[in-house]
Parts: sequence; structure tokens; C-alpha cells
Amino acid sequence: MTPEMTLYWLDLTGTFVFGLSGAMLAVRRDLDIFGIAVLAVAAALSGGLVRDMALGATPVAALATSDYLLAALCAAVCVFFAHRQIERLAKPVMVLDALGLGLFAVSGARKALEYGLDPIPAMVVGVLTAVGGGVVRDLLVTEVPRVLREEVYALAALLGAGVVVLADHLAFEPTLSAVAGAVAAALVRILSVYLGWQAPKAPGPRS
Amino acid sequence: MTPEMTLYWLDLTGTFVFGLSGAMLAVRRDLDIFGIAVLAVAAALSGGLVRDMALGATPVAALATSDYLLAALCAAVCVFFAHRQIERLAKPVMVLDALGLGLFAVSGARKALEYGLDPIPAMVVGVLTAVGGGVVRDLLVTEVPRVLREEVYALAALLGAGVVVLADHLAFEPTLSAVAGAVAAALVRILSVYLGWQAPKAPGPRS
Amino acid sequence: MTPEMTLYWLDLTGTFVFGLSGAMLAVRRDLDIFGIAVLAVAAALSGGLVRDMALGATPVAALATSDYLLAALCAAVCVFFAHRQIERLAKPVMVLDALGLGLFAVSGARKALEYGLDPIPAMVVGVLTAVGGGVVRDLLVTEVPRVLREEVYALAALLGAGVVVLADHLAFEPTLSAVAGAVAAALVRILSVYLGWQAPKAPGPRS
Repeated sequence: MTPEMTLYWLDLTGTFVFGLSGAMLAVRRDLDIFGIAVLAVAAALSGGLVRDMALGATPVAALATSDYLLAALCAAVCVFFAHRQIERLAKPVMVLDALGLGLFAVSGARKALEYGLDPIPAMVVGVLTAVGGGVVRDLLVTEVPRVLREEVYALAALLGAGVVVLADHLAFEPTLSAVAGAVAAALVRILSVYLGWQAPKAPGPRS
Repeated sequence: MTPEMTLYWLDLTGTFVFGLSGAMLAVRRDLDIFGIAVLAVAAALSGGLVRDMALGATPVAALATSDYLLAALCAAVCVFFAHRQIERLAKPVMVLDALGLGLFAVSGARKALEYGLDPIPAMVVGVLTAVGGGVVRDLLVTEVPRVLREEVYALAALLGAGVVVLADHLAFEPTLSAVAGAVAAALVRILSVYLGWQAPKAPGPRS
Repeated sequence: MTPEMTLYWLDLTGTFVFGLSGAMLAVRRDLDIFGIAVLAVAAALSGGLVRDMALGATPVAALATSDYLLAALCAAVCVFFAHRQIERLAKPVMVLDALGLGLFAVSGARKALEYGLDPIPAMVVGVLTAVGGGVVRDLLVTEVPRVLREEVYALAALLGAGVVVLADHLAFEPTLSAVAGAVAAALVRILSVYLGWQAPKAPGPRS
């Protein structure tokens, strides 16, 4: 698979699962069909939108073809008709969000490297792409975004992006590295929830 | 009128009415004169800002000339001195917001077509331009944005953008189509409020 | 010092102090070490990110080198270990925020002038750069942004940006003007808090 195709499929899958997470949150908040579509699209496309605007990759990928929009809307339709089946999975929003997090961390870091960014900024673009959609999704329903509420979230995205940047430095095969990074990030995120990992807080009392 | 002039006037009028909607919300929230100016500018310019950043049309139109800023500040001054007169109209924020929604849906879709986007993405750019200012305006005062609370909102913007995209496909006269699209979107939005149109929710219980 | 170096140091210092303000807010909200890092980075980089995306200066400065990211993370580490010492200063978040406000107002206006913008839009870019980081920081913890809650905030940024634009028009030495603008903006902001300056509200009752 060419690097362009890898990036395309990572992005498209991430778009679909983030779309599911947005649509599921909309159903939980009792929004109507349009609210479901808006939240699915916002969750699915915001991360890539910020990534492309920051890199100067315009018109942004989310709008250069209809594919991403259709993937997000397809997620909204799936949730509209099958939210009870999806809800029966354990913590569906969290798991879908974790998968999207991994996929977008990897696609963001990949694209940043292709635009010639240094390793550290490339990893941050990965994190930004991964957390961007969830931040917009949560802010739209006035919740504190997951990235601030949860222990291991930005860190999981950083891990996925780091795998891609390191593999690129070592000239590993990009598609395989991308899949490895995405799986690692999603796994760490999901495990951290089930095992209740805690991150340290600043020592001492606070006013 | 040339297409450039049409776009300019649609944008400028949309900027002014969205500026009024932001300033009226600021008065209702008892903000001071600077809060009124900030909310007017944020409501008036955010939609076009996101549109232009996503298309790569930089420096963004809102900053390439002083015209849009002055239109937004002019709206803030009008509201500062005449908010009681404006308030006497029925639901002034909703009506102003509906007009801005129609105008920006149309200008966003128009500009996206000029940047060579496909029909579906062009319609989404229209919706993004139309709802962007209201989303930023509502988030700044930590309200759930109208686009998620209201039944027919993104749909009205989609209708306006769709008229423009269809008319372009059929090679209709652009200025006339733009005005028709803007009026249709604003009317549908306003009627939906007065007639209490409801959109369907996902079937079944939710946890 | 060359204009590029002036801009670089203004931006880097602003990034660090805004990073401190974000990290201090995270500690006050009892967030863990990753929350501190995320809020520091968001507060430090969002203003410049929006500025560069709006000007079309991509890849954005915050990601074109690692310097700004490291400055923001350095601020997060400082706060993690020394938040009690920083807290002992009077109103540390406010003072740090005021310094960042002045520095970014000046750097934003400077960069906008270099991109050929007119005086009024250049001042607005300064204000946007200055308030952007604080808006994102406050929204992420679902607070109404300081720019809307506080009497003299956008106005102080406008003053700093105005000094730079005026000095450019009069062909004054840029580095000196930039420092003067930044100090003026920060001082006006800090004084307004200590002296309790009030801005007028729209006359008459509101519904």
C-alpha cells in the first residue's frame, strides 16, 4: 500500500469511529437527528481540520473530497438506527473514542512528517489531530473535554505519534508502523480506563 | 453585479446581522461595552474565519480589509444605544441569527465553489460558515450552541447552501440564486421556530 | 536586534508566561500532570495558532520549530514543582495572563503588518493573538473566558497592538516600540484589576 493510501484509510477509519462516538454522545444527550449528525461530523472532522489548517494543507482533506463527510454521516445513520446494539458493548463511547484517538494520532504525525516538520512538532500535530475532534465534541455539549478529565489520554496519543516518528527515523515500513502505533495508543488508553491508572498531581495544597 | 460583489455584499450583510445577534446576547448577559464588542465581532467573523482557513483563502477575508470589522463594530454600537428598540421586535436574537444563517450559508457555498470544491463539500462549507459564528458566540458565554439545541438549524443552512450548489450546477444567475437561497434558509429557520417543527429522535430507550 | 529576532523573543516569552497561566489554572482545578501539560500548551500556543492560520503563515510558527512547545512544557514543569511559590505572588494567574496579553498583542500586530495587513485588521490580529490562548484555556475548563468577564482586557490588548501599528506608521524603531506596547498593555490590564476600573454597560433595562 502506498503511503498516501495508508494515510487515507487510517483517516477514513478514524473519521468513522469518531463519528460513532459523537453520534452516541448525541443520543445520550437526547438530541434529535440533526444534533446527531452535527455532533458526528464535528467529532469526526475537527481534528483533521485543525491539523490541515495548521500545516497549510488546504483545502483541508475533510473537504477536498466527499469521502470523510460521508463516513461521518454514515456513522450518524448507524447510531440512529442501532444505538441500542452499540450501547450494549461495554463503555462504547470510550472504546470508539480510544480507537479514533490511536488512528488520528498516527495519521496526524504521518502527515506532519510528510510536510517536513521536526520530530517533536510532528508528535504534537499527532496529539492535536487525535484530541481535536473529542475536544470540539465535548465542548459543544458543554462538558469538560475528556483530554482534561482523563488520566491517560493525551499521553496515549503521544505514544501512538511517537511510534510513527521513531519508525520514520529508523526507516521502518510506514503502513506497518502506523498500524502498530494506532493499536498501541488505543490499547494503552483502554487499559488505563479498565485498570484505573492514575497520573500524579502537583504536590502540596492548592488554593 | 459581478459574483465578487455579490459575495461581498452577502458577507457584509451577514456580518452585520450576526454582529447584532452577538451584541444582543451580550446585553442580555449584562456584559459591558467591551464584552458587547467582543461578542459582536466573534459572532460576526468566526464563521467566515473558519471557512477561509479551511479553504486556504488567506489572509482571511475578515482581516484582508477593514470592512467586516467595521460592520461588526457598527452592529455593537447600534445595540449599545438601541437595544431596547431592537428587543421590542419578537425574538430578535433568533430572527437576526436566522438571517445571518441564510446569508452565510449562501456565501460559504459560493466561495467553496469558486475554490473548486465538489458539491457535497461545498454545501458543508456553507453550513460551517453559517453555524460557525453562532457556535463561537454561544460557547463564549458557555451555552450549548443553538445548532445542537434547535430542531431545524443546520438543516436550514444546508437548504440555503444546496440552492446555491444546485443553481450553480444548472448555470443559473448567481446573484439571484444567492438571494433565493438566503431567503429560503432564513424563512425555513424562522417558520420552524414559530410552528414548533420537531425533528425525529433515535428510536428506543437511552441509558 | 533584527525584526525577526524581536518577534521570536516576544513570542517565546509570551508563550512561557501564558504556559504558566494555563498550568496554574490546571493546578487550581486539581488536574493531574497531563492536564497541566495540556492546559499549558493550549494556553500558550492557541493564540499564535489562530493568528498564523488566519494570516496563512503555515506551517504555523508554534509547530515550525520545537522552541515554543518546549517553552510551554517548561512552564508546565515549573508549575508542577513550584506552584506554591508562584501562588504566593498576588493573583499570579491574572498577572501572568496580563504579561502574555501584552506580549502576544504586540507580536500579533507586528506579524500582521509584515504580512501586509492594513492598520485596523493588524490591530485586530494583535487582539486575537492576545486573547486566543486565554479563551481556549478558559473554555477547556468550561469557564466564561476572561475576555468577556473582565472590564479592561480586549481593550488593553488593543492598546498594545495600537502602539505597534502607530509606531510602524511613524517609522519608529520596532523593537523598542514592541516592548513599549507590551508593557503598556500589561500595565493597563493589571492596574484596571487593582483599581477596579469599570466599563459602561448599555443604558436601560434588559429582558
